[in-house]
Amino acid sequence: MPFHTHKLPNGLQLIGETSPSARSAAVGFFVRTGSRDETPAESGVSHFLEHMMFKGTPRRTAFDVNLDFDRIGASYNAYTSEENTVYYAALLPEYLPRGIDILADILRPSLRDEDFTTEKNVILEEIDMYEDQPGSVAWDRARRIYYGTHPLGNSVLGTKESVGALTRDQMHAYFSRRYAANNIVVSAAGNYDWNTFVRLITDACSGWNTDTVGRENRTEWPGTGGRHLLTREKVQQEYVMFMGGGPPAHSKMRYAADTLALAVGDDSGSRLYWALVDPGHADSADCSYVENDGSGAVYASLSCEPEHTEENTAKVLEVFAGVQTGGITEAELHQAKSKILSRVVRGSEKPMGRMQAIAAAWSYTGEYRDVDTELANFEAVTLADVRAYLDAYPIDRTTVVAFGPLKEMTGLEGKVV
Amino acid sequence: MPFHTHKLPNGLQLIGETSPSARSAAVGFFVRTGSRDETPAESGVSHFLEHMMFKGTPRRTAFDVNLDFDRIGASYNAYTSEENTVYYAALLPEYLPRGIDILADILRPSLRDEDFTTEKNVILEEIDMYEDQPGSVAWDRARRIYYGTHPLGNSVLGTKESVGALTRDQMHAYFSRRYAANNIVVSAAGNYDWNTFVRLITDACSGWNTDTVGRENRTEWPGTGGRHLLTREKVQQEYVMFMGGGPPAHSKMRYAADTLALAVGDDSGSRLYWALVDPGHADSADCSYVENDGSGAVYASLSCEPEHTEENTAKVLEVFAGVQTGGITEAELHQAKSKILSRVVRGSEKPMGRMQAIAAAWSYTGEYRDVDTELANFEAVTLADVRAYLDAYPIDRTTVVAFGPLKEMTGLEGKVV
Repeated sequence: MPFHTHKLPNGLQLIGETSPSARSAAVGFFVRTGSRDETPAESGVSHFLEHMMFKGTPRRTAFDVNLDFDRIGASYNAYTSEENTVYYAALLPEYLPRGIDILADILRPSLRDEDFTTEKNVILEEIDMYEDQPGSVAWDRARRIYYGTHPLGNSVLGTKESVGALTRDQMHAYFSRRYAANNIVVSAAGNYDWNTFVRLITDACSGWNTDTVGRENRTEWPGTGGRHLLTREKVQQEYVMFMGGGPPAHSKMRYAADTLALAVGDDSGSRLYWALVDPGHADSADCSYVENDGSGAVYASLSCEPEHTEENTAKVLEVFAGVQTGGITEAELHQAKSKILSRVVRGSEKPMGRMQAIAAAWSYTGEYRDVDTELANFEAVTLADVRAYLDAYPIDRTTVVAFGPLKEMTGLEGKVV
Repeated sequence: MPFHTHKLPNGLQLIGETSPSARSAAVGFFVRTGSRDETPAESGVSHFLEHMMFKGTPRRTAFDVNLDFDRIGASYNAYTSEENTVYYAALLPEYLPRGIDILADILRPSLRDEDFTTEKNVILEEIDMYEDQPGSVAWDRARRIYYGTHPLGNSVLGTKESVGALTRDQMHAYFSRRYAANNIVVSAAGNYDWNTFVRLITDACSGWNTDTVGRENRTEWPGTGGRHLLTREKVQQEYVMFMGGGPPAHSKMRYAADTLALAVGDDSGSRLYWALVDPGHADSADCSYVENDGSGAVYASLSCEPEHTEENTAKVLEVFAGVQTGGITEAELHQAKSKILSRVVRGSEKPMGRMQAIAAAWSYTGEYRDVDTELANFEAVTLADVRAYLDAYPIDRTTVVAFGPLKEMTGLEGKVV
């Protein structure tokens, strides 16, 4: 499939893969900003701002935004992570001009005082609701411990205190700084004409500002280490999280890291599955590789009855120690690769999947990877690559955080009740 | 995309759409059986049997089934509805032979006594957990009231009593009767060779039995009518469900029914959205067309604070009365069609979507509908078609069931506490 790039004078980067046999198109604006780019006083502003983007512009009320997307039958949404805020739509090819008109418009929002106040309450309620989901809160707290002062540990939602104290002017200042054209990549995939796409984006976005944009603390992070216990009484299950270093998104070791994590902790047929889930010791146990800008991590977790926490934690650490010493078998490598290849292929069959994949690759490495290249990269992983990866990022060097009703645990380095 | 069909001497029906530009393939076994085909004593057996299919065959233990699917990286699953039990897998083209070997094998299960006993407890726990989900239980109970003695009102899960009393021999008798080759359609889509597919299925399934299969009560059902209240105390929200008749799956009116339901009750920009959700009267309100074999229905629902139930119910009935009298506008029709066309197109972009779509169309009508035909059928819907549909299936002729903490409601025809 042909790949194209173009950059506007203000720095806005356009990338796109065109696929004439597709029947729809997908377009997304990837803003290179998230919780890791916030100061403590701004904590939660990226996510709050994402909500505000749908509240209206000089040309459209919030009502119009919904109605206009609805009129063209678009499937649209947005999300905020530690390092990206993304706005996207999937639509029929004939509606691409109207879809781009809406998306580009909402990315220059009015940020009206009244909407700011109303939406702040929505976010505060969202934070309250989030507190009721122990699995999610557990990860938020665990990441904070693992990352110490590194901004990758910042919470995406922020706290009731930080969001409550935010002003409209603080948000506007953050918006101007981080939503500058040269901090945004526009990605498209599916059935559309590249030259038309460039013209539409040029018309809609050429007036956007340019600024000094960047990101601090892009250093790799091995974790704070230790074993920590967070006691939370009204929770039924104990959640135990294991975090260790991994290759950054731009590293060629990402393929070995992803493959190994699947062999160790996929939700079926993996080392952790056979050691903990199949025999019924834990309700769930999994492991995955997380890639970030300049850094990377391997996260594993289990959930179980509180009284079995210690023995299950020991089992996970035993699996890790076994893998660190002996690696995995040729059969395990083959099975993990089969799963990954199948996922990559199936994930590439919709324009939405390709639009996201090329944007992620471009954001992290400035390069285009077509599906076949990506498949070949995974296909090429050998046991020697897995060994080299384990030597560079030992899987048994973990920070352990338990979250739940448990009040005591052996070998604690830190304990936060 | 080319379409093919083939029937084995034992009655097994093969259908397939081939798409050489796809990168994966999907295959599914559609067994024409579900809760509507169960006697009261067998209630829940279809769903229980679906679980048993993964517990092993003469050639494979349950362990082998998982491992073999895992080795080829397949995404596989199964589900049971009122009228279908479906087993499917999405995989890379080179693994199609192995995927078919596993699927065809598990469809002739051992149904071992020991596994039957163990799995019965899993199902009984599932029924318990289901009782904790008021939204789902509400629909189960409401459908039972709406359908009266019509088997489309049968519960898919069954009750603790019916499942608890089921014997392995009853299940085996049901299996022999309903899983006969002539009651199954095998559907495939994506990148694969049709002749190879026919050979693989022939080799694997030619020995399957043929039986007298059919289905009772394929008559249309207008609903029992009336307003009903089911008081359930430990629930926070009140759930109100509105059910009325609709065209059966084989009717050409399905396009008008689907389009109108979207205009009336899509989750954004619809009549119910503007009347109830946008002004904050209800947490949710929606409407959709449900097609079944020989019958059809239009389901709407809302959830809200119990004290607002009466006024919100009145608002929904007012929307229905307005639509019944005045129909919808040209703009509403256009917007609903845009949404549907976009959904149909996006749903067709993966082999899994096409495999399911052609199987559904074939099961209900014995015909093949390619994407373009389906799009043209929706595109052709006029306001006159909507009028004709409303005259045949009045949207304001509903059965109303409220489920939640409410203890009194005006105009009740039936009341079950």
